[in-house]
Amino acid sequence: MPSLARGHILRFRAPAGAPSRPIVERTALILAGGSGTRFWPASRRARPKQLLALDADRSLLAQTVDRLGPLVPPERVWLSTTAALASAVTAQLPGIARERVLAEPAGRNTAPAIAASLLAMPAAARQGVVAVLPSDHRVADPEAFRAALAAAFDAAERFDRIVALGVTPRWPETGFGYLELGAGLPDGGALREVIRFREKPDRATAEAFLASGRHLWNAGIFVFRGTRLLEEIARHAPELAAGLERLAGEPERAEELYAELPSISIDFAVMEHVQGMAAIALDCGWDDLGSWQALYEVLPADAAGNRTHGQAVAVEATGNLLFADQGLVAALGVSDLIVVRTGDAVLVAPRERAQEVRRIVERLEAAGRRDLL
Amino acid sequence: MPSLARGHILRFRAPAGAPSRPIVERTALILAGGSGTRFWPASRRARPKQLLALDADRSLLAQTVDRLGPLVPPERVWLSTTAALASAVTAQLPGIARERVLAEPAGRNTAPAIAASLLAMPAAARQGVVAVLPSDHRVADPEAFRAALAAAFDAAERFDRIVALGVTPRWPETGFGYLELGAGLPDGGALREVIRFREKPDRATAEAFLASGRHLWNAGIFVFRGTRLLEEIARHAPELAAGLERLAGEPERAEELYAELPSISIDFAVMEHVQGMAAIALDCGWDDLGSWQALYEVLPADAAGNRTHGQAVAVEATGNLLFADQGLVAALGVSDLIVVRTGDAVLVAPRERAQEVRRIVERLEAAGRRDLL
Repeated sequence: MPSLARGHILRFRAPAGAPSRPIVERTALILAGGSGTRFWPASRRARPKQLLALDADRSLLAQTVDRLGPLVPPERVWLSTTAALASAVTAQLPGIARERVLAEPAGRNTAPAIAASLLAMPAAARQGVVAVLPSDHRVADPEAFRAALAAAFDAAERFDRIVALGVTPRWPETGFGYLELGAGLPDGGALREVIRFREKPDRATAEAFLASGRHLWNAGIFVFRGTRLLEEIARHAPELAAGLERLAGEPERAEELYAELPSISIDFAVMEHVQGMAAIALDCGWDDLGSWQALYEVLPADAAGNRTHGQAVAVEATGNLLFADQGLVAALGVSDLIVVRTGDAVLVAPRERAQEVRRIVERLEAAGRRDLL
Repeated sequence: MPSLARGHILRFRAPAGAPSRPIVERTALILAGGSGTRFWPASRRARPKQLLALDADRSLLAQTVDRLGPLVPPERVWLSTTAALASAVTAQLPGIARERVLAEPAGRNTAPAIAASLLAMPAAARQGVVAVLPSDHRVADPEAFRAALAAAFDAAERFDRIVALGVTPRWPETGFGYLELGAGLPDGGALREVIRFREKPDRATAEAFLASGRHLWNAGIFVFRGTRLLEEIARHAPELAAGLERLAGEPERAEELYAELPSISIDFAVMEHVQGMAAIALDCGWDDLGSWQALYEVLPADAAGNRTHGQAVAVEATGNLLFADQGLVAALGVSDLIVVRTGDAVLVAPRERAQEVRRIVERLEAAGRRDLL
């Protein structure tokens, strides 16, 4: 594992001028700095969800890179992560050069991460089209995903629009934001205008969105010319833009100045304010795997009606998620539970309470059990 | 750990004649060869229940030796176990000389184990009084236990009776055998005649036993002169007696001949047929810890209403047994479950189905998972 020498911390370059080459580069920027508690005890501060193999043998992050492969090969993939995770990220992705693993000195949410990453890229990449993607989602049909992504790359090039890849809703989800669609783009194929971003709706609104056929789930996947996004940041997030300029002017103070950037999401800082955004519908079995319950829903059921990862035995037990990172999980006569076993901890909870797993983490935090966080 | 050299296998001596010394020795013979599946995954073939620390920091076996201490010090304690367990037993009991850890070449139930152990003891011990005890029971009040045991030693000496220590019933248990009591012994203090052994009763019979005040649970604890028990074996179990004679005559064929002894319990072979057996009531918080549910009942409840062993966290979870041999067990929103975590396995089951844990073991056996048995 490489040590996090200072050289791996972001080095910023000033934005260059107009494109000098006719060939437009296609680059992917994967956001791999996230953390969370919803997959505890499998996920930990040092091993967040994107680094876990949950639904398959490879981690969600590695699957994200694999999925891009035929369209954006690893040589054109960049990663934004945190200093604390950079070693683990690099270790999982031997095909991605360490120079393209950008380690934020501090987590400041997605807007600073994306902006700083764009500034760290060579000018040709920044002037080309860039796809920004989360690293912890699941896609059942990678080919459908790539077809939509290719169309988004084309549209971002042709129209110089920011293009969102939104997911065709499959149920009235109240936990996601939505994109409200307008008319189709002239000569834009499947692309449609985005009228506005909609916050997480209540149940009735979500049902109306689902019925309307004019709303997509916001999956946090966007394609744009890098320089175009930097212009939008300058327009809609002047405080962030000013901070980035200071950073570019004093690279020796990068760590300190980065930590002073506003901590804000790219949606809230920029995307919700962009005029003329377009969207294309993703219909690729996308899932954000937001909880153990979500994982249960995508795993195949075994003969006993349980869904398992690793070694499990079930006797008169049904509807359980039996997840063994190590060793074996045995269930007798229980139903609809989450049972997770890792090297040092076990979690047992009803599946319907999967969203409350953080309460265990909070309890451990209060008890000073940093070894289990 | 000592290897099981042949020298540790039983060496038999022929019974000696009449006692030559006026002082009667008091010896304890602890039966530590048992195996079972009811505490899986904590218990394994190589680490059966008696070797586990379930209700305290020390194993049930070590507690059995500790409990005898003030009455029968370790120098007069003998252990009967199997060749497969002898190393582990010896390792747990540094105070007991290896010569007194008798390893059966093969498990043949309690009658051969007790008889062969008596024959292996020095003549003075065999001619003295011997207490035979299981190694996997719990006693909440060791002083009360020793008081009853001391009375039984006295009675076995004075009357040359076989004395059973039977447990005063606390509920109408259908899983135990009972001793039906008759009149008090003349000049025998708390001792009473045993009229007969009663098999595991149905519920109505168990309730009648409990109400009668004339029945004790058979705890498998007996005190007798060693030579007296050997006489009873000769009388009631002639096949076993003949096998033991062959064994004494051909010590070089001990392993082979031992394996040919009838596999039979001391109760069935001898105790149920003995004339003039006496009993004394044990009122010492005895528990056979027959299942995870039984362990739940004896552990103290924590503030959340759960009973734990090792590290556990519970959030809105009540009435659970949370048992962590290693690592931590976290329960969220679940009730009345058994959750057990060992180095290589997890078990989750409702407490009320504790008796069915063997079904998991059977499944693993069928799957060839010897590593987990």
